[in-house]
Amino acid sequence: MSGFVSFVSSGPGDPELLTVKAVKRLEEADVVLFDDLSSGPILSHARPDADLIGVGKRAGRPSPKQDHVSRVLVEYAQANLRVVRLKSGDSGMFGRLEEEITALRAVGVPFEIVPGVTAASAAAAAAGIPLTRRLTARRVQFITGADVTGDLPPDVNMAALADPLATTVVYMGKRTFAGLAARLIEHGLPGDTPAMLAEAVSTPAERLERYTIQSLAAHLQTLETSTPALIFYGPLAEPET
Amino acid sequence: MSGFVSFVSSGPGDPELLTVKAVKRLEEADVVLFDDLSSGPILSHARPDADLIGVGKRAGRPSPKQDHVSRVLVEYAQANLRVVRLKSGDSGMFGRLEEEITALRAVGVPFEIVPGVTAASAAAAAAGIPLTRRLTARRVQFITGADVTGDLPPDVNMAALADPLATTVVYMGKRTFAGLAARLIEHGLPGDTPAMLAEAVSTPAERLERYTIQSLAAHLQTLETSTPALIFYGPLAEPET
Repeated sequence: MSGFVSFVSSGPGDPELLTVKAVKRLEEADVVLFDDLSSGPILSHARPDADLIGVGKRAGRPSPKQDHVSRVLVEYAQANLRVVRLKSGDSGMFGRLEEEITALRAVGVPFEIVPGVTAASAAAAAAGIPLTRRLTARRVQFITGADVTGDLPPDVNMAALADPLATTVVYMGKRTFAGLAARLIEHGLPGDTPAMLAEAVSTPAERLERYTIQSLAAHLQTLETSTPALIFYGPLAEPET
Repeated sequence: MSGFVSFVSSGPGDPELLTVKAVKRLEEADVVLFDDLSSGPILSHARPDADLIGVGKRAGRPSPKQDHVSRVLVEYAQANLRVVRLKSGDSGMFGRLEEEITALRAVGVPFEIVPGVTAASAAAAAAGIPLTRRLTARRVQFITGADVTGDLPPDVNMAALADPLATTVVYMGKRTFAGLAARLIEHGLPGDTPAMLAEAVSTPAERLERYTIQSLAAHLQTLETSTPALIFYGPLAEPET
């Protein structure tokens, strides 16, 4: 069998934040399976005759079942095609990579993983703040704000999340942040801890707004939007003035 | 003033893990200030007439003081040059980016930050494991194993680090991991928790070895090497068999 699957991290959205390796894999691909967030100009690197197949799950639209995606990956690879499975951000972070890898291993399809720029790195760079700070933030943590049910995972470690000496980045957390913020404050994190909402990171629609955890919670309770976003909180560097 | 500083993340080492934007900035630079880990083939993207200046700090060699690096950055920018400050991995992660930004802001030198692939993403990709897992690792955290004194920072949050439901990646932690592992076990993390040592990630010398936190601690106590490495521990996916 000459079929092969490359899990390619597409980065946060800006086509210039693709890696050189990701561009090469896209140029060589016979088939590209892409998520919503890794579409648009990024796909222009694919050959004109490559098959481009959307498998995204976006709020409000029916989305292909995860096992369907795995089945399609296997079928194309077994047809001896070079398959790129494009995943937004870094494919190892909150991307259900493991389920697709497991399906490929089960039938012996060879694969590789091309790492990429995670959205948190891009948002921090755009805001001019580092993810770690030499004395005040020597730990950075990434969590998901939504488990498979859409809620905050029930087993979150509050001692870890309410730590005033860590930078925390919540992926997919807009809907659940108000509840998380209340629990953070209960666990001793000051309500005026700096926070940042980063929407549509690295795209022309990018918006970065500074809050406190308390004011961001209030803001999000009135907000109706499905724009992808990250929430930062902790001892963030001050905004440029 | 037309001088400008681009903080460019060079990724973990493999030149193909540079972003497209990083390559462009290197091609346009008049001056490139680089660390040890971001040297070698990556620098070949610079113009033949660009000034390449090493400012790395590697164990055993005298290293330029941080304020010297900041001063050099400012001087070149004030001479109206396009300066690239190349930083290994993602520049926002454990890279002292903030001190250099502060120096530029103090004198009004404009700058940008180009995010990149952090070594943890590349190591996880090479090992075929995701950084987060859908049910068993919905939090991933990055810490430094060495503060400015070379020791484990004294204020580490053990409740966060001994959490069996998080993937932890320790940067620069080979020398201090034995001590950390003892404390993790004291705080209830089982000694047989999976661990991985990832050395020289994404380079031809890459080595990925599986351990438990206990056996890795024992291994590192006898090891004399300055190869850059990451340590992973937590509910890591099984190695491929």
